[in-house]
Amino acid sequence: MELWLVLGISVLAILFALFLAKSVLARDTGTEEMQKISDYIKEGAEAFLKRQNKTIGILAVVVAALLFALYAFLRPENSKDVLARYPLALWTIGSFLFGAACSVIAGYIGMWISIRTNIRTASAAVTSLNGALQTALRGGAVAGLFVVAMCLLGISILFLLVQKFSGVDARNVPLVIAGFGFGASFVALFAQLGGGIYTKAADVGADLVGKVEAGIPEDDPRNPAVIADLVGDNVGDCAGRGADLFESTAAENIGALILGASLFAANVKLFSPAQQLGVILFPLVVSALCIIASIIGVMLVKTKEDTTNPMKALNLGYYVTAILAALLFGFACYWLLNPGVVNFSGTSATPNAWIYFWACGIVGLLTSVAFLFITQYYTESEYRPVQSIADASVTGPATNIISGIAVGLECVAMPVIVIGVALITSYLLGEASGLKDAGLFGTALATMGMLGTAGYVLAMDTFGPITDNAGGIVEMSNQPEEVRAKTDKLDAVGNTTKALTKGYAVGSAALAAFLLFSAYLDELKHYGLTLSSINLAKPVVFVCAMLGAMLVFLFASLAIRAVGKAAQVVIEDVRDQFKNDPGILAGTSKPNYGRTVDIVTRSALREMVLPGILAVCMPIAVGIVFRLLYNAMGTNRTASSATGAEGVAGFLMVATIVGIVMALFLNNAGGAWDNAKKYIEAGQHGGKGSDAHKAAVVGDTVGDPFKDTAGPSLHVLIKLLATITLVLAPFFI
Amino acid sequence: MELWLVLGISVLAILFALFLAKSVLARDTGTEEMQKISDYIKEGAEAFLKRQNKTIGILAVVVAALLFALYAFLRPENSKDVLARYPLALWTIGSFLFGAACSVIAGYIGMWISIRTNIRTASAAVTSLNGALQTALRGGAVAGLFVVAMCLLGISILFLLVQKFSGVDARNVPLVIAGFGFGASFVALFAQLGGGIYTKAADVGADLVGKVEAGIPEDDPRNPAVIADLVGDNVGDCAGRGADLFESTAAENIGALILGASLFAANVKLFSPAQQLGVILFPLVVSALCIIASIIGVMLVKTKEDTTNPMKALNLGYYVTAILAALLFGFACYWLLNPGVVNFSGTSATPNAWIYFWACGIVGLLTSVAFLFITQYYTESEYRPVQSIADASVTGPATNIISGIAVGLECVAMPVIVIGVALITSYLLGEASGLKDAGLFGTALATMGMLGTAGYVLAMDTFGPITDNAGGIVEMSNQPEEVRAKTDKLDAVGNTTKALTKGYAVGSAALAAFLLFSAYLDELKHYGLTLSSINLAKPVVFVCAMLGAMLVFLFASLAIRAVGKAAQVVIEDVRDQFKNDPGILAGTSKPNYGRTVDIVTRSALREMVLPGILAVCMPIAVGIVFRLLYNAMGTNRTASSATGAEGVAGFLMVATIVGIVMALFLNNAGGAWDNAKKYIEAGQHGGKGSDAHKAAVVGDTVGDPFKDTAGPSLHVLIKLLATITLVLAPFFI
Repeated sequence: MELWLVLGISVLAILFALFLAKSVLARDTGTEEMQKISDYIKEGAEAFLKRQNKTIGILAVVVAALLFALYAFLRPENSKDVLARYPLALWTIGSFLFGAACSVIAGYIGMWISIRTNIRTASAAVTSLNGALQTALRGGAVAGLFVVAMCLLGISILFLLVQKFSGVDARNVPLVIAGFGFGASFVALFAQLGGGIYTKAADVGADLVGKVEAGIPEDDPRNPAVIADLVGDNVGDCAGRGADLFESTAAENIGALILGASLFAANVKLFSPAQQLGVILFPLVVSALCIIASIIGVMLVKTKEDTTNPMKALNLGYYVTAILAALLFGFACYWLLNPGVVNFSGTSATPNAWIYFWACGIVGLLTSVAFLFITQYYTESEYRPVQSIADASVTGPATNIISGIAVGLECVAMPVIVIGVALITSYLLGEASGLKDAGLFGTALATMGMLGTAGYVLAMDTFGPITDNAGGIVEMSNQPEEVRAKTDKLDAVGNTTKALTKGYAVGSAALAAFLLFSAYLDELKHYGLTLSSINLAKPVVFVCAMLGAMLVFLFASLAIRAVGKAAQVVIEDVRDQFKNDPGILAGTSKPNYGRTVDIVTRSALREMVLPGILAVCMPIAVGIVFRLLYNAMGTNRTASSATGAEGVAGFLMVATIVGIVMALFLNNAGGAWDNAKKYIEAGQHGGKGSDAHKAAVVGDTVGDPFKDTAGPSLHVLIKLLATITLVLAPFFI
Repeated sequence: MELWLVLGISVLAILFALFLAKSVLARDTGTEEMQKISDYIKEGAEAFLKRQNKTIGILAVVVAALLFALYAFLRPENSKDVLARYPLALWTIGSFLFGAACSVIAGYIGMWISIRTNIRTASAAVTSLNGALQTALRGGAVAGLFVVAMCLLGISILFLLVQKFSGVDARNVPLVIAGFGFGASFVALFAQLGGGIYTKAADVGADLVGKVEAGIPEDDPRNPAVIADLVGDNVGDCAGRGADLFESTAAENIGALILGASLFAANVKLFSPAQQLGVILFPLVVSALCIIASIIGVMLVKTKEDTTNPMKALNLGYYVTAILAALLFGFACYWLLNPGVVNFSGTSATPNAWIYFWACGIVGLLTSVAFLFITQYYTESEYRPVQSIADASVTGPATNIISGIAVGLECVAMPVIVIGVALITSYLLGEASGLKDAGLFGTALATMGMLGTAGYVLAMDTFGPITDNAGGIVEMSNQPEEVRAKTDKLDAVGNTTKALTKGYAVGSAALAAFLLFSAYLDELKHYGLTLSSINLAKPVVFVCAMLGAMLVFLFASLAIRAVGKAAQVVIEDVRDQFKNDPGILAGTSKPNYGRTVDIVTRSALREMVLPGILAVCMPIAVGIVFRLLYNAMGTNRTASSATGAEGVAGFLMVATIVGIVMALFLNNAGGAWDNAKKYIEAGQHGGKGSDAHKAAVVGDTVGDPFKDTAGPSLHVLIKLLATITLVLAPFFI
C-alpha cells in the first residue's frame, strides 16, 4: 500500500511536470535574433552534457566492474549476508548503475527544460514581468519535480524488484539497495565538478580575455567565449545543483530506510507486524507527500507588474510550501509512526509518539528557514557583511580580499549553531517519543523535514540560470531598456535564489551526513561488528580524522586550481581567434562560438577527473590500509587499536564537519564578494569604473571558483563519502 | 637527583645566555645615525611590551580570581582530590600566575636582547658577513635559551615547592601544577594576538598610506609609521613566537609528566619504587639535556664571507643540534626508562624497552626535519608552488589570489600525513616496548623529540626580526650598497627561518595537543570518570566537534579583521600628521614616530581582547552547557548521552585538527605569496613595477595577516584549549 502510494505520487508528479513543460514550451519563443542566441546555448549545453555523461558513464562502468569484483570475489562471505555472494554483487552493482542512471536522466531533463525556458522567459519579459517570472519558475519546477520524483521512483522500483525477486525481508532491503545512493553521489560529484569547473572557467576566461585584454564589455557577441559563459550557467548551476539535491534526497531516503528498519526492530512489541513496511517506508511516503506541497507552492506564485522586489512572491510560495509540507508530515506521522493507534491493542504505551516525531520534522523545516535567513544576511547588500567588503574595496583589492575572507570565516558560526541545535533537539524529541532507540530516527526525521521543501527549492534554484540566460539573450538581441529592466530584476532574484539554495544544500547535507553515518554504524552492527563508539582518543581514529580534514582542503585546492587551468585554455583559444581573424573584433565576422565551447568542455571534463578520483579513492584507501594494519597487529592489539571500520567512521565524520564549514566559507565569501561588487555598481563608493569597483571586481573573480565550483562540490563530497562507506562497509571490518 | 639536574642545567643555561648576551652587547653599536633609529625602535617596543604586559596582567588577575572562586567555592569536592579545597585552589592559581609570569619574563628578555642586537648586527655587517650572522644568531640564542630554560626552571621550582609544602605524592604533583601550562598559554595567546595584530596593522597601514597614497618608498623616514613597522617585527615575531614555544614546551612537559605518572602506575611491578621520580621527571630531564645540544649547535655556526647562501651555515648548526639531541635522548632513555637494567632484579622482562622509547624520540626529531623540508617546498621560490603563484600574477591580482589560496589549501596534505605517521609509529613503538599502556607515552616521547631542538629553532626564529631590523637600520642610515647587500642576504635567510619556525611550531603544537588530551583523559580517570571513549557518533559529541571547527574559523576571522581595523587607525593618524605638518613630506620636519607607535599599540591591544576572550570562554561554555544538559536529563539518559567532559573532549580534538590544517593553510599561503612577490622583484615576469609585481603585492598584503597574525595565533589557540580543559576538567564532570 505505502509503496504503491509512493509510486503513484511519483508518477503523477512526473506527469504533472510533463504537463508543466508542455505549457511552458507552448509559450512564445521571441524574435529570430533571440532564437539564434538561444540555439547556440542549447547546442553548447547539450554537447557538454552529452560528452560529460559519456565520461561519467565510462567511469561508472569501471567502478561498477570493480564493485562487482570486490563483492563477488574478494569479499569474505559473512554469515550475516542477506543474500548469497553473486546475487548480492549483482544487486549492488545493479543499484549503483540504476542510481547513476536516474541521476543522469533527472539532470538531463532539468537542463533540457532550462535551456528551452530561457528564451521563453526572455520573450515573456517583453510584455509582462509576471509572465516572465511564472515562465521561469515553472520551467524550474519541471527540473525540480523531475529530480525529486525520479529519485523516489527509482528507490521504490528498486525496493519492489528486490523484494519480489530476491526474497530478502523488507527490513534488509535497504542494505541491498545502498548502491543506489552511491550511484547518485557518484554522478553528482562529477556533474557538479565538471559543471562547476566549466561554468567558472568560461566566466573567468571570458572576463579576463574580453573585458581586461580586449576591452570589450561583458556579454559582447564579439567575444568567442560569451556563449560558453551562458552555457556554463546551465551546466553548473542547473545540472550541478540538480544532481546535488538528487543525491541528498537519495542518500537521505536510503539512510532513513536503514534507520527505520532498526527502529522497527527495536520496538517490535509496540508495532503490529503489518506496520513494519509502513515504518520502513515512512521516508519515501513523506517525500512523496511533500511533492504535492511543492507543486501547490509553485503554482501559487504570481507577482504584480510594478513590484520592486519579485523575491517577495517567491518567498510567499516558499512559506506556503513549508506550511503544507509540515501538515502533510504530521499526517504521515499519525498514519505510519503511531504504534498506539493502529495497533488497537487496548491502551497504547506511546499514544503521543507521533506528535514527537512530527515535532522532529518541524525542527528540520525550521532549520531550512533559518538557513535561508542566515544566507541572506551574509550575502545580501543591505546587511553589514557585504557592506563591510564594499567599504574595504575603497583601499584596494588587498583589503577587499582580506575583508571578504574575514566575512567568509565568520559566517560559519550561525549555521553550525543551528545545525547543532537541530540535531540535539530532534534527537531529544525522538528519545522523548517513548520508543526505544528513537533518538537517531528523530534526527533522520529532521532531515526529512528539511528536505520536505526540496522540490520548491530546486524550482527556485533552476529559476536562477533561466533568468540569467534570459537576461543574456535580451542583452545580446538588443531589446529596449524597459525589457532589460525586467530581466535585470529577475536576474537579481535569481542570484539570491542561487545563494539560498546553496545554503539549503549545505544544511541538508549536514543533516543527511549525520543520518548516513548512523546508518553506516547500523550496517556494521548488522555485519557483526558492534562499534560501541567512534573513539577519537584512539591514535588511529585521530589520524583518520586528520586525514578527513586534509581531504577537504586538498579537494578544494584541486577544484579551485582546475578552474584556473581550464580558464587558461579559454584565454588561449580566444586570443587565437582574435589573432587569426581581425574581423571578429571589428564586428565584421562571427567568432567561432562552438570551438570555444568545445575546448572548455574538454578541458573541464579533463580537470574534473583528479579531484573526483581523490574523493572516491581516499575513503577506500583509508579503510583498507587501517584494516590491514589492524589485522597485522594480531595478538598485539590493545584497547586502543581500531579497526578500519572505526577509522573510516572518524575520517568520515571529521571530513563531514570540515566539509560543511569549508563549504559555508567558500559559498558565502563568494556570494558576499559578488554582491559587494553589485552594491558598488549600484552607485556606492564611486560606482562603476571607480577604483573601489576595480577592487571589488577582483574579489568577485576570486569568489567565482569558491562559490560555484569548490563550495558546491564539497556538499556533494560529504555525501559521497558517506554513501561510499555505506556500500563498502563490509570491506573495512 | 633528577630534579636537581634539571634545575642545575636550567640555571647553567640561563647563566650561559647571560654570558652570550654580555658578549653580544659588547660589540660595536655603529654610527650615531644608526643609534638614533635603534633607539626609536627600542623605545617603541618597550612601550608596547610594557602596556601589553599591563593588559595581560590585569586579565590574568581577573582569570586567577575567577579560577580561585571556581575552585574554592563552586566546585563540588571530589573524593579523589589530592588536596583539600583551599590549598588546591591556592596552588592552582599560584601555578597559573607563576606560569604567566615566567612566560612574560622570558618574552621580555627575548625582546630586550633582540632590540639591542639589531644595531650590533647592522654595525657588524659593515665589516663582516660572518660577524653579522654570528651576532644575530647569538642574540637570538639568548632569547631561545631564556624561553626554554625559564620554562624548565619554572616547572621544576613549582614541582619542588608543591612536593615540599603540600605533601602531595610525586605522581599527583602534575595535577596540581597544570595551571602553569594554562598560565603560559594564556600569556602566549594575548602576546601572539597583540603582537601579531600590531605588526601587521603597522605594516599594512604604513604601506597603504605611505607607498600607495603618498607615493614614498618603503622604510622611508618621512613616513610616521615606519618605526611602528620596525617595532612590529620585534613584538610580533620575536615576542610572539617566543611565547608560543614557551607554551609548547610548558604544555608538553606538564602533559608528559601526567602521562609519565600513569605509565609508572601501570607498570609498578617493572620499576623499583626509587625509579618513580625518574620516570615522571623524564620529560624535564630530556628538555634540560637538549638545551646543551642547542648551545653547542649555536656556537658552531659560522659562514664564509663570500657565500651566496648563509642559510647553509644555519642548517648545519641545526643538524648538529638534532644529532646531539638524539644521542642525549638515548642516554636519558637508557638511564630513566629502563626497568630491566636499573632494577637488577635478575633478568628483565623488558631489556630493550629503552631502545623503543628512544626510537619514539627519533620519530619526533625526524618529524621536525620533515616539517622543515615541507615548509621550504611550499614557501621557497625555487619550487613549483611559489612559481605557480608568480606565474598567475601575470593575469592580475585575482588569479594571484586564487592561485595562492589553492597552494595554501594543498599544502596541508603532506604535514598531515607526516603527523599521522609520527603519531601511529610512535604509538606502536611505545606499545612494542613491552611496558603496559605505553603507547600514549610513546607519542609523548615523539613530542619531546620534536621539541628537543626548540632552543636552536627559537634562536633561528629570533634571528629573523633581528636581521630584518638590522636591514631597516642600514637602509635608514644610508649605508653603502655593499653593506646593504650583506644585510639583504641575512634578511632573506631570516624570512626563511621565520617560515620554518612556524612550520615547526604547528607540528609540535599538533603533537603536543594529542599528548594534552591524553593527559586530560587521564585526569578525568583520576577524578573517577573513566571515559571509555570520546564517541563522535553521539549527537552531543558530534555537535561539540562541529563547534570546535567553528571556533577555529571564527577566531581566524576575528584575528584577520582586527588587523584591518587597527591598520585603519594607523592610516588615519599618518594622514593627520601629513595634513597638519606639510614639512614632514617635504623632509624639513621629523614626523612624530612616537604618536603612531602609541596609537597602534592601543589599537592592537584593544583588538586582541575579543578573539582572546572567545578562545578562553568557548571551551568553558561548551563544557558547562553540556554538563547541565546531561544533568538535566537525569533518568532519561541513554547510552548515547554524553557528559560535558566528553563533549569538551570532542570539541577539543576537532578544534585541534581544524586548527592545525587552518594554521598550515594560513602560514604557508602567506609565506608563498610573500616569496612570489620577492621572486618577481628579483626580475621574473617583468620585475619591480610591472603589472605582475602589482598583482603580487596584493597577494603579499593579503598574506600578511594570514601568516603573521591569524596563523600563529592558531598554534597558540589549540594549546590554550588543551590547557584550559586540563585545568577545568573537574567542572565538566
